[in-house]
Amino acid sequence: MTPSIVKVSIRRVEGGSVSERDDVLAVEEPLEILVGQRNVSITMRTPGNDEELAAGFLFTEGILRDRAQIAGIAIAGENQVTVSLDGAAGVDLGRLERHFYMSSSCGVCGKASIQALETVGCPNLAADRPVVDPDLIHRLPELLRASQQVFDRTGGLHASALFHSSGDLLDVREDVGRHNALDKLIGSRFLNGGLPLDDHLILLSGRASFELVQKALMAGVAVLVSVGAPSSLAAEMAERFRMTLIGFARERRFNVYSGAWRLYRE
Amino acid sequence: MTPSIVKVSIRRVEGGSVSERDDVLAVEEPLEILVGQRNVSITMRTPGNDEELAAGFLFTEGILRDRAQIAGIAIAGENQVTVSLDGAAGVDLGRLERHFYMSSSCGVCGKASIQALETVGCPNLAADRPVVDPDLIHRLPELLRASQQVFDRTGGLHASALFHSSGDLLDVREDVGRHNALDKLIGSRFLNGGLPLDDHLILLSGRASFELVQKALMAGVAVLVSVGAPSSLAAEMAERFRMTLIGFARERRFNVYSGAWRLYRE
Repeated sequence: MTPSIVKVSIRRVEGGSVSERDDVLAVEEPLEILVGQRNVSITMRTPGNDEELAAGFLFTEGILRDRAQIAGIAIAGENQVTVSLDGAAGVDLGRLERHFYMSSSCGVCGKASIQALETVGCPNLAADRPVVDPDLIHRLPELLRASQQVFDRTGGLHASALFHSSGDLLDVREDVGRHNALDKLIGSRFLNGGLPLDDHLILLSGRASFELVQKALMAGVAVLVSVGAPSSLAAEMAERFRMTLIGFARERRFNVYSGAWRLYRE
Repeated sequence: MTPSIVKVSIRRVEGGSVSERDDVLAVEEPLEILVGQRNVSITMRTPGNDEELAAGFLFTEGILRDRAQIAGIAIAGENQVTVSLDGAAGVDLGRLERHFYMSSSCGVCGKASIQALETVGCPNLAADRPVVDPDLIHRLPELLRASQQVFDRTGGLHASALFHSSGDLLDVREDVGRHNALDKLIGSRFLNGGLPLDDHLILLSGRASFELVQKALMAGVAVLVSVGAPSSLAAEMAERFRMTLIGFARERRFNVYSGAWRLYRE
């Protein structure tokens, strides 16, 4: 299998001094995802956990709802993965195109994007749980750092980490694409029957965009914590679906953009 | 026009203390790009410079080669931009689909991605210029920070900055999507007849991916500098096309991944 990091020779410049040395880069290669004979996506990703990535992508985009719809997942060559469906699965692949072209019917705006998610049947999060200890949020970035291996070496990978609300770190996935890291993480749970993640937290090493909040909502994630900033639409959508969205979680600080009631009872 | 930042109420947590306050977020909204009647892309972007974004996207993806191919650019509503072509333009819109599906004919791998760029007729960079003063590289991040307005307030935007090789800062564009920031920057030059950028440097506030190197190469950018890490494929492609690629440019350090001869003559 293609490795996830590669060694290169570089020149390192520090102030006025220049030295030749070896460095490691995160590998970026395209992955083609097929459902049966049909190409549904090409994504630039870091090799590894490709079955999880394919399954996670199909789940978070609303194509698959249940593990039982999958008859098998096969890797072909280094950069192609084929998901075979159970004959009775009743999967609507047209959704991917309609999602892309939804603008033609309903107008392109953030509101339409949120409505699209409503029609997919995104799970509604519970109004009373989980209760989250604010001190746990302070500790998440450090817990992630302690477990990350590739990230520390290349500085080029995004990480998504899954925590139980008790604080246990359950899983970490890394990728050059932040959406891929999250799809791999969710895909792993999807394949093992571990969804929804409604008693869990996910920590993102970067920023929280609309796309990432959407994917997390599909998996029923109650608390999404990012080390960087959320976007306007990410915050709006989290609020609408009762998700707790936290940003800038670092150095014992964080901002709560929605769902503060899971941390602070009124 | 939709603003590029929006005010929200948040709870800020610092250690054990919690306060209510106002915060600003970068706006993220979908933009539909049409060529004539045909939808060619929907991208999540920060509103502003939408004409530049559309023109830049069409240029860096190899659809348009010349400003004269455009008869007009019209904004419809808040999230739609239509590029009208000159009747004789001879534009091949099928390229976007073939690009996406190129895998079926030539295999999906980084090498195929690089070959695809070769066939587009990406300009070959000059072998002897520009000569770049290493000390200028050290100063770029600070020059960018001094000019960025939105970034400082939300922490949620990526920036692309254009410098002349003499060190003059010519232009900055910001967006929630790093590819959009670069498309806006290149689109602006494309519309004003300011390409290729073969005596210029572009600074990226984040990481350098395959996609960003590809877009910069289409504009003939000789030196691409990123504050974060490059990916393996980004470095490989820069090397192949004689681009100087620099990463981790911060705190008076940087790494040179390709084209070091523009900084250090042998």
